[in-house]
Amino acid sequence: MDKIGVKIVVIGGGTGSFTLLSNLKYYTNKITALVNMADDGGSTGQLRDELGVLPPGDVRQCLVALSQSEKVRDLFSYRFEEGTLSGHAFGNLFLTALEKMTGNFAEAVETASTVLNIVGKVEPVTLDPVTLVMEKSNGEVTRGEFQIGHADFGDAVRPEFRLDPEPKMNPAIVPALAEADLIVIAPGNLYGSLAPALIVPGVSDAIKNSKAKKVYVCNLVTKPGQTDGFKVHDFAEEIERLGKFELDYILYNTKQPSPELLDKYAHENELSVEVDQDKLDTARYKAVGGKFISNEIYKPAGEHDPIAAARTLIRHDADAVSRALMKLYFS
Amino acid sequence: MDKIGVKIVVIGGGTGSFTLLSNLKYYTNKITALVNMADDGGSTGQLRDELGVLPPGDVRQCLVALSQSEKVRDLFSYRFEEGTLSGHAFGNLFLTALEKMTGNFAEAVETASTVLNIVGKVEPVTLDPVTLVMEKSNGEVTRGEFQIGHADFGDAVRPEFRLDPEPKMNPAIVPALAEADLIVIAPGNLYGSLAPALIVPGVSDAIKNSKAKKVYVCNLVTKPGQTDGFKVHDFAEEIERLGKFELDYILYNTKQPSPELLDKYAHENELSVEVDQDKLDTARYKAVGGKFISNEIYKPAGEHDPIAAARTLIRHDADAVSRALMKLYFS
Repeated sequence: MDKIGVKIVVIGGGTGSFTLLSNLKYYTNKITALVNMADDGGSTGQLRDELGVLPPGDVRQCLVALSQSEKVRDLFSYRFEEGTLSGHAFGNLFLTALEKMTGNFAEAVETASTVLNIVGKVEPVTLDPVTLVMEKSNGEVTRGEFQIGHADFGDAVRPEFRLDPEPKMNPAIVPALAEADLIVIAPGNLYGSLAPALIVPGVSDAIKNSKAKKVYVCNLVTKPGQTDGFKVHDFAEEIERLGKFELDYILYNTKQPSPELLDKYAHENELSVEVDQDKLDTARYKAVGGKFISNEIYKPAGEHDPIAAARTLIRHDADAVSRALMKLYFS
Repeated sequence: MDKIGVKIVVIGGGTGSFTLLSNLKYYTNKITALVNMADDGGSTGQLRDELGVLPPGDVRQCLVALSQSEKVRDLFSYRFEEGTLSGHAFGNLFLTALEKMTGNFAEAVETASTVLNIVGKVEPVTLDPVTLVMEKSNGEVTRGEFQIGHADFGDAVRPEFRLDPEPKMNPAIVPALAEADLIVIAPGNLYGSLAPALIVPGVSDAIKNSKAKKVYVCNLVTKPGQTDGFKVHDFAEEIERLGKFELDYILYNTKQPSPELLDKYAHENELSVEVDQDKLDTARYKAVGGKFISNEIYKPAGEHDPIAAARTLIRHDADAVSRALMKLYFS
């Protein structure tokens, strides 16, 4: 295997990871995608409930993002639209069948990686079944990533998170993090996608102990009811609070989305993240601004997937972000 | 592609085809499996009903039989056992997803053939959606392969069959039949598996016009309520009646199953096909006897598949049959 380029670990699992990985693979093939394993909505939630498997959805998305085989990639992303199979992505069924057959999710991911001919590796952050649990400062507890993703925090922002039961870290991610040149926290749902990856016991230390430069690619928009009014520094602070490590860099967007994009596609109250320049200028980490918003107009992945349909349509310009990451490493 | 060996077309689709193809692939890689497309039971029936696809089940079995990739073969045969996916073979979902995605079943079969790394080719006998219709001499009409497979004919044996609507033959099978050295009618359910392949308009003429030796591998047991009391020559006659062509050879079994096998595994009233030696001696075709019963004890493919569980457990010794077919061609 000829491996070239910078060793990059991308932590996340949702659409932000998908977008970034889809492009980053053109600059390096030493990518490891660390995927959160708390997803419990939609097709994935149904498969967990009915078959007791680990959540395939985010892993599938990362596998597809890194795939070099267009045909199989399309098949993995295909979502059934009718009957009892409705809503299931084919790739979820592929991973589920293999896990049921072999009793081993890691082996299922490996086989899928071969079939999809992926660049790099996809590693679940844990191989234990877990539920994400949120506890707000007012004592209110919410269980499950899907519920948490749809919760309105009210005044009790910046809640605490844990995984139940407490999982073991997937041992394969220790060397990946230790040997990385860059550790990238992908843009994504702070509490639904990033928290459940960052809070797995051992991940924080593995990041802290790595010689890698630690970078967070800041979200483009706030999430109504959860991160309203958050500016760039607020997001960075939350990553550091959840992950218990210090960022070296953040990449933040300086380009306004077109009024047309905002008008037509932004969800109500989903607003651009403002830049709090004063705080960035005096922050311990280095903040790097750039024109990181894509001009492309995204359609939801499938109208039959209520989760995909609810996702923001304002996306990162993955190539601009990838280039900024590479520049950051080489400078 | 290095193609070696005798050009053989195997017509059928059920368990008999599966068993034969699984072994025949070691003697030639110029195999074409022609598959009946009237299946409407179990997982396949549900996918037809809910998603409007062509029946994947028999095609999947033939693909698996010809596969050279053990891992993917196991995955294709894996059957979900719980929840809303219960009863679906993964390979059925694979073919269904590809057909829905591309709108083209033939392309789905081709992609599956590549993924499974199969020897030879699998060709659906038609690419049109059809229902098998049976009309008995008493005027009674039964629709659907599953219903027909479970029907008790009473005294009205040797019924008439048609496909509704009348389908077009898959054009790919014309050259396969024309260029074949051997055309083999696989053992199998006369009316559920073989009739719907043989009665597709055009198939009869394509078989008749082929220079190939035409061989029928006679069933080992009778089917209660349908072929009770049928002897070897009766089966051969039914093939000729349904297919409207003349057989050159039949292969029939001369070995009694062990009493243990009969006692423990034969279904009630499912009896060994008797040899009507007088008729075979004077028949136009050449009848070749051999020890064609396997001593292996077969387990049903999946207890969660009611169709598989109902299948006979007395099977052909596929290697003995394959060798007899090769000998027949070379002599």
